[in-house]
Amino acid sequence: MKFITIGELLLRLSPPNYEKIRTTNSFIINFGGAEANVAVSLANLGVDSTYFTVLPNNDLGKAAVAYLKANDVHASKIILDGDRIGTYYLEEGVSVRSSKVIYDRKYSAFAEYDYTDTDLEGVLKGYDWLHLSGITPALSANCQILLEKALVVAKRLGITVSFDPNYRASLWDWNTARDVLSTYMPYVDILIGIEPLHLYNADGKDVKEGLSMQPSFKDMNRVFRELDNQFHFRAIARTVRFAHSGSNNSLMAFLHMDGETYESNTMNFDIVDRVGGGDAFSSGLIFALMKNMEPQTAVNFAVASSVMKHSIRGDTNITDEASITRLMENKSYDIRR
Amino acid sequence: MKFITIGELLLRLSPPNYEKIRTTNSFIINFGGAEANVAVSLANLGVDSTYFTVLPNNDLGKAAVAYLKANDVHASKIILDGDRIGTYYLEEGVSVRSSKVIYDRKYSAFAEYDYTDTDLEGVLKGYDWLHLSGITPALSANCQILLEKALVVAKRLGITVSFDPNYRASLWDWNTARDVLSTYMPYVDILIGIEPLHLYNADGKDVKEGLSMQPSFKDMNRVFRELDNQFHFRAIARTVRFAHSGSNNSLMAFLHMDGETYESNTMNFDIVDRVGGGDAFSSGLIFALMKNMEPQTAVNFAVASSVMKHSIRGDTNITDEASITRLMENKSYDIRR
Amino acid sequence: MKFITIGELLLRLSPPNYEKIRTTNSFIINFGGAEANVAVSLANLGVDSTYFTVLPNNDLGKAAVAYLKANDVHASKIILDGDRIGTYYLEEGVSVRSSKVIYDRKYSAFAEYDYTDTDLEGVLKGYDWLHLSGITPALSANCQILLEKALVVAKRLGITVSFDPNYRASLWDWNTARDVLSTYMPYVDILIGIEPLHLYNADGKDVKEGLSMQPSFKDMNRVFRELDNQFHFRAIARTVRFAHSGSNNSLMAFLHMDGETYESNTMNFDIVDRVGGGDAFSSGLIFALMKNMEPQTAVNFAVASSVMKHSIRGDTNITDEASITRLMENKSYDIRR
Amino acid sequence: MKFITIGELLLRLSPPNYEKIRTTNSFIINFGGAEANVAVSLANLGVDSTYFTVLPNNDLGKAAVAYLKANDVHASKIILDGDRIGTYYLEEGVSVRSSKVIYDRKYSAFAEYDYTDTDLEGVLKGYDWLHLSGITPALSANCQILLEKALVVAKRLGITVSFDPNYRASLWDWNTARDVLSTYMPYVDILIGIEPLHLYNADGKDVKEGLSMQPSFKDMNRVFRELDNQFHFRAIARTVRFAHSGSNNSLMAFLHMDGETYESNTMNFDIVDRVGGGDAFSSGLIFALMKNMEPQTAVNFAVASSVMKHSIRGDTNITDEASITRLMENKSYDIRR
Amino acid sequence: MKFITIGELLLRLSPPNYEKIRTTNSFIINFGGAEANVAVSLANLGVDSTYFTVLPNNDLGKAAVAYLKANDVHASKIILDGDRIGTYYLEEGVSVRSSKVIYDRKYSAFAEYDYTDTDLEGVLKGYDWLHLSGITPALSANCQILLEKALVVAKRLGITVSFDPNYRASLWDWNTARDVLSTYMPYVDILIGIEPLHLYNADGKDVKEGLSMQPSFKDMNRVFRELDNQFHFRAIARTVRFAHSGSNNSLMAFLHMDGETYESNTMNFDIVDRVGGGDAFSSGLIFALMKNMEPQTAVNFAVASSVMKHSIRGDTNITDEASITRLMENKSYDIRR
Amino acid sequence: MKFITIGELLLRLSPPNYEKIRTTNSFIINFGGAEANVAVSLANLGVDSTYFTVLPNNDLGKAAVAYLKANDVHASKIILDGDRIGTYYLEEGVSVRSSKVIYDRKYSAFAEYDYTDTDLEGVLKGYDWLHLSGITPALSANCQILLEKALVVAKRLGITVSFDPNYRASLWDWNTARDVLSTYMPYVDILIGIEPLHLYNADGKDVKEGLSMQPSFKDMNRVFRELDNQFHFRAIARTVRFAHSGSNNSLMAFLHMDGETYESNTMNFDIVDRVGGGDAFSSGLIFALMKNMEPQTAVNFAVASSVMKHSIRGDTNITDEASITRLMENKSYDIRR
Repeated sequence: MKFITIGELLLRLSPPNYEKIRTTNSFIINFGGAEANVAVSLANLGVDSTYFTVLPNNDLGKAAVAYLKANDVHASKIILDGDRIGTYYLEEGVSVRSSKVIYDRKYSAFAEYDYTDTDLEGVLKGYDWLHLSGITPALSANCQILLEKALVVAKRLGITVSFDPNYRASLWDWNTARDVLSTYMPYVDILIGIEPLHLYNADGKDVKEGLSMQPSFKDMNRVFRELDNQFHFRAIARTVRFAHSGSNNSLMAFLHMDGETYESNTMNFDIVDRVGGGDAFSSGLIFALMKNMEPQTAVNFAVASSVMKHSIRGDTNITDEASITRLMENKSYDIRR
Repeated sequence: MKFITIGELLLRLSPPNYEKIRTTNSFIINFGGAEANVAVSLANLGVDSTYFTVLPNNDLGKAAVAYLKANDVHASKIILDGDRIGTYYLEEGVSVRSSKVIYDRKYSAFAEYDYTDTDLEGVLKGYDWLHLSGITPALSANCQILLEKALVVAKRLGITVSFDPNYRASLWDWNTARDVLSTYMPYVDILIGIEPLHLYNADGKDVKEGLSMQPSFKDMNRVFRELDNQFHFRAIARTVRFAHSGSNNSLMAFLHMDGETYESNTMNFDIVDRVGGGDAFSSGLIFALMKNMEPQTAVNFAVASSVMKHSIRGDTNITDEASITRLMENKSYDIRR
Repeated sequence: MKFITIGELLLRLSPPNYEKIRTTNSFIINFGGAEANVAVSLANLGVDSTYFTVLPNNDLGKAAVAYLKANDVHASKIILDGDRIGTYYLEEGVSVRSSKVIYDRKYSAFAEYDYTDTDLEGVLKGYDWLHLSGITPALSANCQILLEKALVVAKRLGITVSFDPNYRASLWDWNTARDVLSTYMPYVDILIGIEPLHLYNADGKDVKEGLSMQPSFKDMNRVFRELDNQFHFRAIARTVRFAHSGSNNSLMAFLHMDGETYESNTMNFDIVDRVGGGDAFSSGLIFALMKNMEPQTAVNFAVASSVMKHSIRGDTNITDEASITRLMENKSYDIRR
Repeated sequence: MKFITIGELLLRLSPPNYEKIRTTNSFIINFGGAEANVAVSLANLGVDSTYFTVLPNNDLGKAAVAYLKANDVHASKIILDGDRIGTYYLEEGVSVRSSKVIYDRKYSAFAEYDYTDTDLEGVLKGYDWLHLSGITPALSANCQILLEKALVVAKRLGITVSFDPNYRASLWDWNTARDVLSTYMPYVDILIGIEPLHLYNADGKDVKEGLSMQPSFKDMNRVFRELDNQFHFRAIARTVRFAHSGSNNSLMAFLHMDGETYESNTMNFDIVDRVGGGDAFSSGLIFALMKNMEPQTAVNFAVASSVMKHSIRGDTNITDEASITRLMENKSYDIRR
Repeated sequence: MKFITIGELLLRLSPPNYEKIRTTNSFIINFGGAEANVAVSLANLGVDSTYFTVLPNNDLGKAAVAYLKANDVHASKIILDGDRIGTYYLEEGVSVRSSKVIYDRKYSAFAEYDYTDTDLEGVLKGYDWLHLSGITPALSANCQILLEKALVVAKRLGITVSFDPNYRASLWDWNTARDVLSTYMPYVDILIGIEPLHLYNADGKDVKEGLSMQPSFKDMNRVFRELDNQFHFRAIARTVRFAHSGSNNSLMAFLHMDGETYESNTMNFDIVDRVGGGDAFSSGLIFALMKNMEPQTAVNFAVASSVMKHSIRGDTNITDEASITRLMENKSYDIRR
Repeated sequence: MKFITIGELLLRLSPPNYEKIRTTNSFIINFGGAEANVAVSLANLGVDSTYFTVLPNNDLGKAAVAYLKANDVHASKIILDGDRIGTYYLEEGVSVRSSKVIYDRKYSAFAEYDYTDTDLEGVLKGYDWLHLSGITPALSANCQILLEKALVVAKRLGITVSFDPNYRASLWDWNTARDVLSTYMPYVDILIGIEPLHLYNADGKDVKEGLSMQPSFKDMNRVFRELDNQFHFRAIARTVRFAHSGSNNSLMAFLHMDGETYESNTMNFDIVDRVGGGDAFSSGLIFALMKNMEPQTAVNFAVASSVMKHSIRGDTNITDEASITRLMENKSYDIRR
């Protein structure tokens, strides 16, 4: 199975040791971005993984490419052009302080690039699976063109498409997001996360017959069926997070496949690094589906993948399959020597 | 409301990463001191805040002043004179290890300064609120003169006075402290913390009709009434801490105002940095009273302020009002982006 | 009481801040090794403590010796000879990630040294207590000779011998270990840990009438009696660990003395550094027995010693007696100033 | 003398320990920008110093303001508005490697702000000295409006204006810069640096009767006279740098006042941090002229100020007057204790 | 031109900030090894570069592979097998202290691997250039087999072979080295460094008609001719280093091609990191010859490549061609922005 | 030869990376003090070395003792008593910035201790060599008593006494120092440094027939003779330092023995850490005299010891004899591997 994904790579700058941005004297460098995280995690799981993006042809862009290559992600299709790398500043949460993000990603090389003449057929040909997210169309009109072209070409080439709506209130508003993303759904095979496609508010308050942020199996099942009736997915999944503090969360997920809804185990865990938890769920689920795991195992594996990510600094779950399986099966947490 | 406080600023030196003093190779620098912590927290909450102290006219004194200015605390009244900055070494606790302090504050510029000719009327005029603590009179006879002058002048100028007894067994003994501080109470409007004014031992063992370290509402209410009858405060408050480990505590507080005793919510939290937790309760309570919050809200806000502090490195709660309110109202701890 | 121990000192290299070995850019240096950890902890408790080993005569060997001396361990008997210092790489676990060890200790100066002409009588004379572990015979045939000589000489000199089997699956297999170690037992007075002497598998699965990893008092009592009948120890102890996560464990222990089995309190604790937890139990127990504490107190003290270790970076419990007693007696965890 | 300056504040991110941007894992944070550097250096010399700029109202903007306040620069006129802080990445040179800059300052809050309604009279009133640089008009049309307004208002208010053309080839081209800056010269009293006002190429190659990068006294004198005849300055200065390597330079300067050209001593020095060397010359010269030093002393002081800066990490010469004088007078470099 | 090299990759551990091994608390991680350094430098210069080695299949081996990939070196032929990665400890010299190395490379996966069945034709086919060094045969008998097979296969496939004798007194003695390496010379096209092929002692003392460490052009020319007469090389080169201190050296080189001896410029430079200086000369020379630079330019380029390396932390010259050319042409060392 | 020295141990706190005290966020910890530096250096040279001081019985005192033990200095005579450890803050100089010291050593445990009942005969018995410095009597009246007792006892026991006047203008004035120290000279065998015993001013300005800071051989010879006539020393030495910058110095020394004056080579060197340079000269000279080196060799060895120290972080020359000899003999500075 050959995997490819398209999206914006982000330079992440975060103070060390849970310091505050206002008072820190240095930033730790990581690279992230929803799709890059999925590409890197899958490569670490042994999947042939390719990433397409646009990066500036300077030392920051080159550092990002080196990061991808070091993680076995094919970077040869990346376009080096434009001025700036999308950036975000992360104040990592701890204890009762939640993590905080300052985005500085406007005018990035990826968002500003003109994709009208980009040969997406050339980019996508030969791949079996394409992963996309709802962040890309939120970035710029150029990026909406890119995404639409990618979806159409993928359909034509018979590539499986997974899609994470990944709603970000700081990038666009709820209704616009829902309207734009709805037009993409006919091209999507696996939907990972349902906001803002189903109708409730971004702040999680129930509206009309909307869904709570921590829904019951019954409600979730109903909403999955409604979405499935509307768009006919191969699978739909959604995580549920219980943020007991900035340092300790629980996570579980629901997966809908072949008319059934599966509910994972709920795992409680301390948090070393919160960012990329959702992307590690995506990479875990994509891997599980690529390997044709049973739906119940698949959703457990995806949750374990996400939980594992929270124990690793940086945006990405750089872990091998055995470690995730071991965690999923709840083997001993004691030292291995 | 213009706020001023008087006290000793301390240079804090603590090993990084919860290392032990005996084996560390470096010290992280912070500045603290009970009153400075209150001044800095209030300035971060937007209050016009001034700090009066004495610091040596060398690069350590200048670094302390720069810290205050960077945090919007007015430092123009500070006297640069004398030889040394009060210092303490902090071994930060973690897990089952509790935090440990080595004081090296004797002979500090603040303690050695002769305040007999200091124009305290010039210092205090134009301010609405003065905060003092019981640490100052424990430092030296000079400092007792300073504090007595400050209380008398504040009374004359009609300034609201808050006072945190802040008993430190390493600086003076229980009975002396109680006797000295009792003479200050007629000048005090808001009392934050009651030890050693009420009669039990410093190590928390009950004596006669004394109060336990974790008293019931009923006992606390009784003691508040006794103190109020004796000294006629505008408000009295006292926190109750449950130290489950060096890394995890719970905190709640009682507040007595207008004849009623209010009990806050109890909050459980992990600890990043234990020091200054009490001062953040003081700054939270002072802020709440300045803003005329309802007593029940005020005590909850003060507890949330203290809890938030424990998640921040350094002695001070450098947080804005919205974040504390958000914590008090128990909003989501998940990442904000 | 003069204490001596013989074993391999290890250079420990671990990434900072719970980073992964694959992505870290630096290693923090510590020194460890089961017996060195016991020697250093006992010296920190005030015991006259000596360590015998072989180290290469280069700056790494000298750094190790300096570490011992700085901790008051007598190092004058150490032989400086050979090529390399035994090394291990430790990826410290956190949250759901368990700690991982890469051993690079083969061909060490200690394992390669020819002990046939070593004057062990000269080494051991004048000491009251000798501590050994099952790691040494697992290292090389040379080391088996060393251990056998040490046991025979110790018996002749009337030295009390404590022994920690310390089974490591990466060094030798279960059956070989059991067979070799069983021949040592007649020379042993205090046995700390029972695997692989009693018959169950290294992976903890019950075989026949074997013992579970978290046995009941009744089962433990039975096994202690069986071992005692077979080998006639002065004391046998065994810890039981509950690894709730990589960052939080509980620990308790059983101690068998004079025909009785004692069960300690169970302590729950967060983990700063997992390695050396077992050695801190050994040092705590040896200290308690040297001081003739009551068996119930002894086992509680040993558990508190182990628990305290988990809050300290590095392999060793560098703590004084008062702090361990304080923890054992469950005094306040709040800051001491 | 009250000093004010207007310009863009920059967040500087540079790898520690002379690492390369491509391979570093963290960035040290400093704040810079030509005018901010001058403001901070003058405040450290004891001058009443104010800085006007536009910064985003987020934690990065607030950190920048805290930096200014900690250095005694008045920040109350700063406008908090817009999205991003101007940023640059600095790879610090060492040995044969020269320092390298990646600018990421486009679309900054300062460049994007609409100054048409800004009350510059309100900003500048009450000040004696205004410092500006040629970087500002290179940033945006908005900034050109800002600068033109500032010059006109300063003239009307009788404020002394110093100007550093500070040509940056990455921001605009030589001819545009020369044409724009020439229109400012009638408003300028003190010109610090002459490129691109005099006619030679940005790469330093002689064109026609242009000036070499390391001119003789005779040539420099001629060019000063030509510029003076054209624009009638109170003073003109220009530094000459000899970059022997990335770590060792020599520096001298020429100053033209009252029809005379003065030549400073040439100082050789190792470089800790190259950036801000020119700004420290400006602040040194402004300070010297404010204090009415003799021209020969003034140019020596300005060179010493610049040289001192190269020994300090960060963009700014945070040094007191005595230290610069001591260096200028070539006192002992040995330890002071 | 497709380049390949074979050799042992080394894990380098060095104290930060020029600390001593005996007193440091951490090691900075780098990867090196003579041949890996050449492969990485050539890849950074844009050459299609492949590296063949054997590494243990653990996280240390994987980190090494990630380092290569991040630097664009093809790593797909690397064999993951065996126990340990060759390691060395480097105490970096500074001022009057010279750098010191402790080798811990015995028993490495590369040295222990049995190459008798390795398909070297499969490894080398399709490449134009093979680089080898005299370190490999010094490691083990296995490695001598590997090297001999590689030379024979390369000859058969018509691959250009460059060879750096790289004599290390700590690995083998002078006479053995000379005897073994002499048998390789008939397969070598380009010889980089002549010791121990020519007859003088390893400690540089002249013996009989041997060569001084800092020979005159005349002597060097004579020796080159003798070697050329004996072995018929396409080119022979040799650097000459003047170690003025641990922090400052000068370097020049001689190159013999087509019967002529060329002498480079002598460059003086400060040293950030001494290790890999020779390998950067090799990569520079190989690159220059691949590009068919004139001999005089080639030797200057190779020296500039080596000089540049000394300004970069780590073993490798990770620099692009333009920067080396700029240094060779002695362009300005001042900041580029 | 058994060596002992008496003096105040100092905790040294210095910003990393040549940062300024005013802006640093951490301090690197070292231990120093003139006599401790000599004790540690001699132990590193293999001399049996003992240090006597008073330190507070807290974790800072214990860390200091551990430092001594790790360096093989006998610490068993140290008295643990009193409140504070003498402390100094060091801003390390670099380039044109000189190092700066802030002393915070008043009221130290060593200075405050009452030595009237101290059994100095018990302390000194069995030693062959006692080293003292002029810093001790500058600290307190208690310390003057200590020093006087030590001199008298040493004389009685026939111990060789070396003395370094080590004048510090911040501790006492020139004339007092000269008067006090002159009374010690009859007890002194080897005088290392002559200020303030000979008559010129502390700032180095010539007075009357005083000596310049960089005297000629002739002047130095004359002064040595005068001092020798007055006090009859076994040897007198004095270093001459040329501080070209904060980072680069030259050093030479004169030694007077048996009526002859010897002049060392002048060595130029870069400076990593300036502090302790004089103490390393003392330890080098004491070692050379203990080993009965020829006077010319002795003074060269002492200068090389001092020069080596400047390349090592911390106050002490932790170097073995071979490395100093190698430096003295001007062997290659290139890497040793």
